[in-house]
Formats: sequence, structure tokens, C-alpha cells
Amino acid sequence: MPVSEYRYKRRVQFADTDLAGVVHFSWIARYLEEAEHALWRNAGLSIVPADSPVSFPRVALSIEFKAPLFFEDEFEVHVRLTGVSKRSLTYAHTITRGDTVIATGTMTAVCVSKSPAPMKAVEIPAEILARLEIHPST
Amino acid sequence: MPVSEYRYKRRVQFADTDLAGVVHFSWIARYLEEAEHALWRNAGLSIVPADSPVSFPRVALSIEFKAPLFFEDEFEVHVRLTGVSKRSLTYAHTITRGDTVIATGTMTAVCVSKSPAPMKAVEIPAEILARLEIHPST
Amino acid sequence: MPVSEYRYKRRVQFADTDLAGVVHFSWIARYLEEAEHALWRNAGLSIVPADSPVSFPRVALSIEFKAPLFFEDEFEVHVRLTGVSKRSLTYAHTITRGDTVIATGTMTAVCVSKSPAPMKAVEIPAEILARLEIHPST
Amino acid sequence: MPVSEYRYKRRVQFADTDLAGVVHFSWIARYLEEAEHALWRNAGLSIVPADSPVSFPRVALSIEFKAPLFFEDEFEVHVRLTGVSKRSLTYAHTITRGDTVIATGTMTAVCVSKSPAPMKAVEIPAEILARLEIHPST
Repeated sequence: MPVSEYRYKRRVQFADTDLAGVVHFSWIARYLEEAEHALWRNAGLSIVPADSPVSFPRVALSIEFKAPLFFEDEFEVHVRLTGVSKRSLTYAHTITRGDTVIATGTMTAVCVSKSPAPMKAVEIPAEILARLEIHPST
Repeated sequence: MPVSEYRYKRRVQFADTDLAGVVHFSWIARYLEEAEHALWRNAGLSIVPADSPVSFPRVALSIEFKAPLFFEDEFEVHVRLTGVSKRSLTYAHTITRGDTVIATGTMTAVCVSKSPAPMKAVEIPAEILARLEIHPST
Repeated sequence: MPVSEYRYKRRVQFADTDLAGVVHFSWIARYLEEAEHALWRNAGLSIVPADSPVSFPRVALSIEFKAPLFFEDEFEVHVRLTGVSKRSLTYAHTITRGDTVIATGTMTAVCVSKSPAPMKAVEIPAEILARLEIHPST
Repeated sequence: MPVSEYRYKRRVQFADTDLAGVVHFSWIARYLEEAEHALWRNAGLSIVPADSPVSFPRVALSIEFKAPLFFEDEFEVHVRLTGVSKRSLTYAHTITRGDTVIATGTMTAVCVSKSPAPMKAVEIPAEILARLEIHPST
């Protein structure tokens, strides 16, 4: 069955923090991507298999930071697929620690051919599209 | 004189890249922050002096990625202060490599008291506001 | 019962890789630390609780890299406590992916008072020492 | 003329720090590599030109951490080439902030063919060896 969402669980590591004593904002962006790749694995896919002719660079990212995350906090990234077009995928994310919303985000990735450079948008392979679908709440 | 913009120059380091052969998108977010802090230094300020009672966590981040950056590329982040309120600062950024636009972004940081946790928004100290001003093109 | 070792499991994330297509060597160093902190949690400890008067910066690190790690690889870090003195802890690590040894390492951390700066070596609190012990194979 | 050393200058960025208020030790390892690559550029080389058949993964790393580095500190990495063999290069590094020694390190990188995987040690191309030489103090 196609996959439209995933709940990715993670713990804050020491190297994710900065001198303000909280998770550095760039790590929040990485958590969104880790959740996206976990959604792909849950769909039986890898976002970059060793021999893939395509890759999926981000073209847009937007995050609102609501509350700080601390060292060793356990949290969840709920990622939903909110848009699927021939050449791109859009995700919405909510990061929570228990009942506290830490951040919300959206991210759009586009399918590009790996060579020749510069990257050129191409159609998402059918075998990938067959395993992903838009989240019903969208 | 108050500062409203800065042109920050940087070279891509090896650890900034990922297996797709380009700069990882989370590094683009870090470049925006490096430019912001360089703007502060250019205004005679540090964003977190050792004894500061406040810090400036991000509350919003938005980036559009236009073209890839590669290992050892030299690039520029042009950061402008586009919004100043009692408690927050908003920046707009353009990253370029020569004539190529790599990314554009906006970021909002809010002034918070460092203790007690959780972070609470407070007014930006007057001696900081005196050294910053909104960019005329805004 | 005191803890002397831990087997930490982890998957390689996209942001851990570099343009050579493998995990960047600095991430191997981070994996060693993640395993150390997991050992502490398994002993009922946090290496930096919010109100701790001490912290444990590294004073020595040595790694031999034997084989590359790739995106999405699942691997294990086996960390053993090989030295305990009044003021320092020494660990030995072996990273494996299945039967393949990826890297071996040693790391020494010293107990320091958090303030005033600069960091000064102090004795490890007794309640921490009570929960850790040297690995029998040492 | 062949190059045997380089003095690489750098400023600590916010994202290099951790909750202990100092530069995370994994960043010290990255600084060593940044200095190595700067030495190569100073020799008219890139360590991984786009079309290179070889790359230079690290096989050994050793660091002693002597003093903490703080946000916005300006520091220097003095890297010397201390060993050159047919297939490997060894470097020694000293990181200083003014008169304070922050860390010393050694690193060995081996020349490998980029494909097919797994990486296989090969001879360093002659045009690279012609531009590098062992530091006279070695």
C-alpha cells in the first residue's frame, strides 16, 4: 500500500546543540529530512539508492520554531506528503516532544537527473510514485 | 553609523557537502546565520557576548534553493535587515556565486531572556537597536 | 550494577555523508560520543544534566578508519570503559557493520568545573563513579 | 615550488559550538581538514577536482585537546606535511589562538581509486606529488 505519512522518533544528541543550550536551528531542518527518508524506507524505497539515475534536492524549505529542544529530549517528527506532481514532492512536518509542538515545517523536493550537471528536473520514476500518495488530511 | 546590510564571503568546505556532490541544504541555512552574525560584528556587536542576558533564537526560516553550490566554490551572502520591532529582527538573504543566484531566504529572530527557561521574549536592548537599522530598499 | 560497556545502534543519515559518497570522518568521531552518552544513560546518568556543576570535555581522541560507511547503513558502536581515574574516563570503541569493522577509537574525557572559566579539572562526583566501572576485558 | 605547510586562519561560527559553550570536539577535527585542503589549494591543487579518479579518505586521526575555543574566536591551524609515501600523506597540525595552544593533531590520508567500490589504495598521481614535500622540521 502506498505511504502518505510517517512518525519518526529521535533523541537529541550532544552535537545537535549550540552554546545557547538548545538544538541549533539547522538541526531542526535535518530532522525534517531524516523523517522524509524514514517515510521513504517505510514505503520500501531509498531516496538515493547507489545506482539511481535521479536525486531529490530541496527547492523550498520553511520552518516555524515554536519551542526549544534540549539535549537528550526524545521527540517525534510527523511527516505527511501534501503534494505530488510529475517532478516534485511536498511534505508538511510537525515536530513534537510529548504534547509540546517544537516546530512545523514544509519542504519541497524536485526530481533531477544526476548527470550531466547542472541538475535538470525530470519526471519522478513510476515505481517511486506507485509507492507514495498524498496524505488524506491534505 | 547603524548597519543595515552585510556582504559575507565564504568558501564551501568539504564537510558542507553530501553524497549528491553538492552543499547539503542545512548548510545553506547555516550560511544565512553566519552572514547575520558577520553583520552584527560589522555593527560592533556580538550576537551572544559571554555575559549577555539575552539571546536571539530563530522563530521563522524560509529558503528557496535555486542552484547547487559545489566544493571549494567561493560565494557571497548578502544579508539585509528588513524588519525591526521591539522584540524581533527580520533578515532577507541572497546567496550568489558570481552572477548565479544560489538561494534566497528570510529569517526572523526574537530576543529572549536567557534565564529562567523556558525562553521568554523580551525587548531588544537599546544599545543593540542603536547600531542596527532597516535596509533602505525594504 | 555499574556499567562498563554499551552497544549503540544507529543508521547513517544523509547529512552524515560527504561528496565522496561515504560518511565524513568527523561523523565517526560523533558516533563515538553518541555511544558514550548512551552508555551513561544506560547507567542511569546524563553526561550533562541541566543543573550539573561539572562537564566532561574530551582531552584526547584517536581513530583508525578501516572501511567506509554508506548512506542508510545500520551499524553498531561497541564502547567499553577502559580507564577510570579520579578526574578522567577513557573509552575504547569499535564500530562495525555486520562483520565488517568500520573503525576503532579511543577517547579520554576529563571532569571539569563548569565555572568559572577557564575549565579546571576536578574530581568526578562519587555518585557518577558508583555507576561506572572498567570493562573486564581491559 | 612544492608546498610543505600552511597557516589557515578561521573564526569560530555559532554552529560549531555545543551546549557546554565551547567548540564541539568534532569541529576541531574538521578544522584540521579545512587546513589540509587550504594547503592543497596553496599548492595549486584541489583535493577532489570534479573529474578526479582518486580521493583521499582519512585512515588515522589523533587529536589532543589543550584548551577550549569559544564563539567568534579567531584562530590559526598550522598544518605541516610530515610524511609522504607512494600511497599516503601524513600531516601534523597545531591550532592556536594567539599564544594559546588549543589542540595538536596528526592525520593520515590514503590515496584510493574512486571506483569500483570498495575503495582500493592506489599510487598518488605524480602531478600531485610534484607539488607537495615533507616539512623540513620533520
